[in-house]
Formats: sequence, C-alpha cells, structure tokens
Amino acid sequence: MTGPAVEFWFEFASTYSYIAAARIESEARRCGISVDWHPFLLGPIFSAQGWSDSPFNIYPAKGRYMWRDMERLCDKFSLPFRRPSEFPRNGLLAARVASLEGTERWRAEFVRAVYRANFAEDRCISEVGVISEILVSLRQDAQSLIASANSAKNKERLRRQTERASHLGIFGAPTIVAGGELFWGNDRLEDALEFCGQAFGRRSRP
Amino acid sequence: MTGPAVEFWFEFASTYSYIAAARIESEARRCGISVDWHPFLLGPIFSAQGWSDSPFNIYPAKGRYMWRDMERLCDKFSLPFRRPSEFPRNGLLAARVASLEGTERWRAEFVRAVYRANFAEDRCISEVGVISEILVSLRQDAQSLIASANSAKNKERLRRQTERASHLGIFGAPTIVAGGELFWGNDRLEDALEFCGQAFGRRSRP
Repeated sequence: MTGPAVEFWFEFASTYSYIAAARIESEARRCGISVDWHPFLLGPIFSAQGWSDSPFNIYPAKGRYMWRDMERLCDKFSLPFRRPSEFPRNGLLAARVASLEGTERWRAEFVRAVYRANFAEDRCISEVGVISEILVSLRQDAQSLIASANSAKNKERLRRQTERASHLGIFGAPTIVAGGELFWGNDRLEDALEFCGQAFGRRSRP
Repeated sequence: MTGPAVEFWFEFASTYSYIAAARIESEARRCGISVDWHPFLLGPIFSAQGWSDSPFNIYPAKGRYMWRDMERLCDKFSLPFRRPSEFPRNGLLAARVASLEGTERWRAEFVRAVYRANFAEDRCISEVGVISEILVSLRQDAQSLIASANSAKNKERLRRQTERASHLGIFGAPTIVAGGELFWGNDRLEDALEFCGQAFGRRSRP
C-alpha cells in the first residue's frame, strides 16, 4: 500500500506559490506525507474568468497589498524576497520542463530554484538561458531537456494538466489537493496536510 | 498612555468576517490588545473594482470553494455554520446600527449576533424585525436605536467610514489595521496581532 500524498498545483508566475513551494516538502515530510508536483498554467483559467492579466495588476489596491504581504510572509518564513521588476513573468518554459516525465528526482529542486530566480533574484525565468543555467546547476543536460520540454508531446501534456486543473475546480495557485478536496493558497498548507492525514487514516482502517 | 489597539474593518455580508468577528476579541485580549470595531460597506468598494455582486457569485469555482472552506474553518474554530439560502445579504441596516456613537458597550456582541443570524441561523439580516430582535436580546431600545441608525447624520457617518476604508487601501473584508498596516482576511488575524504588539513595543521604548 502506498502512503498518504497530496498534489501540489502551482504556476511559476504566482507569488504565493513561491512560498508554498519552498515550504511544502519539509512540512509534508514531518507528517509522513509525500508531495506530487503538478505544474499548470493560470493564463487559460484566468481567461475563462474574464481576466487577461494577473488580478494583482487588474486591481491595484489588491496588488499593493499583496507585495507588502509577500515581504512580511517571506520574512516570517525566512525566505529571501525581492519584488520582481516584471510581473507576472511568463513561466511557460519552466512549466514545460517541470512537466517532463521521468524527472521526479530533481523536479522539486528545479521548481524551487525557478521560484527563487523570479522572486528572490529578479531574473527573467521566461528566458531559455536562465532555465538552462538552473538545469546545469542541478547537473542536468539542459539542451536535451529543453528540447524535450518543447516537444509536441510534452506541450500537450502541460495543456492536459491545465485542463485537469480546471476540471478539478482550481481557480488560483497554489492549490493543494488533499483527501479529494481543494485547499487554496499557502495559508491552507497546514490544513491540507492535516486533512490528508485524517483522510488516509480513515481509508486505512480495516 | 493608551494600550495597543487594532482596527477591525468588517462588512456584514462577508463570510470570512463572521469567523474573524467571532475570534478577534478573545485572541486580542490574550495579547493585551484592544479592538476598535469599524463597520463599512463593501458594495461601493466592489463597484469601484467593476463588480456588481460578490466575487463568490461572479466566479462560481471560487464561490464553490469558499462555501466548503467556510464549513471546514467553522469546524476548526468550533463555530456554528449553515450556508445561507441568500447570499450576499444586505447588511446596510446592521452596519448603520453598528456605526452609532455611544454603543461601544454592546457593539461587539451585536456584531457577533448579526453574523450568527446570517451564517449560522440563515436569518434575513436586512429585515428590521431581525435586527430589532437582536437589539432586544441585548436589552437595548430597538425602536429608538433603529430610528437613530437611519438618521441622516448616522447614514453620513457610515458613508464616511466606507470612504475611509477605501482611502486606507481596503479592498475586501475583514481587514485588520495594525501598526499602520493592512492585514486582509481571517487568515491574517494572528499575524496582525503580533505586528501590533511589536509596533507598540517599538513606540513605547524610551
């Protein structure tokens, strides 16, 4: 029998996903829970809600609040943070790399490095050079991985992931799927893990 | 010298304000912090963002999520909850009553009773009869208070409060103003109180 697991659905442009991506693995490990990483694209989901930009840009008061909230939260969780000079950055290439099959061994580390590049180092994660450099730092064959990431098959894979997110009822990032339910935002990380543990306990009972 | 205080900005139609209104006074007391209650109306603020309804109705996936999230959170905080048959309910009269001068002694209790009526008892808080009954249960002169609440002077008072909310950068409810900063949502209650305590400590230092 496999142990309890949560699905972590994230988008590379999402600020609060940076914090949750940095925290989820160690928090989950503490609860004996494993994490499945699910990159997806918010663009199509926001489009369906009638937005052509981040809500933090569309609604300026909300945006101003979010940047200050990010500073405070990163401080609380001891994470480096620098407000990016461009927002939102296009995370398509990074999401394609994170979608590749057979990359489970270094996927989480890649995800965290991309978030750090965007939200702590103000680097342009839409650029091939930046993504390559991150892959090289993980001792991976950047050129071959980027070619695979941009293959028709892998593009389709990410498209299907985003469709699945939408079917699951996901409307924002990060979202944690735990025990068959959605938990939205870094703020729900602990609740999601607790819910997952309880649901697993119920299922495991003879 | 007065002690540390936070401002609690709330709207009676707001689901998460129900939870925060139920929790804030006891949590603040534990930190030696007092709470100033600031009713306001989200309607004009949402209008300015282009919304003519609650975002939980405009964006159905977000709405479905919120109702389930409310169930889980009320369970977590041991609060009664029943999904109201009408949402959002018009909290104008209740907000006018809560805005009245000289009502500090029973204001918090009134606010909590109105939220309970809306979100635990599915009662129509826009009705004079419901608000009267709540005032009577608090041993107040309902008829005279409702007349004062609907006076031109008090209507203007609530209008100014809502304008002040907007000037403060408030875009949703509940919002806690602590140490000169905004903390949005029941999720930030503990952070707001901690921030208030630290800011007060810095100010009090010789």
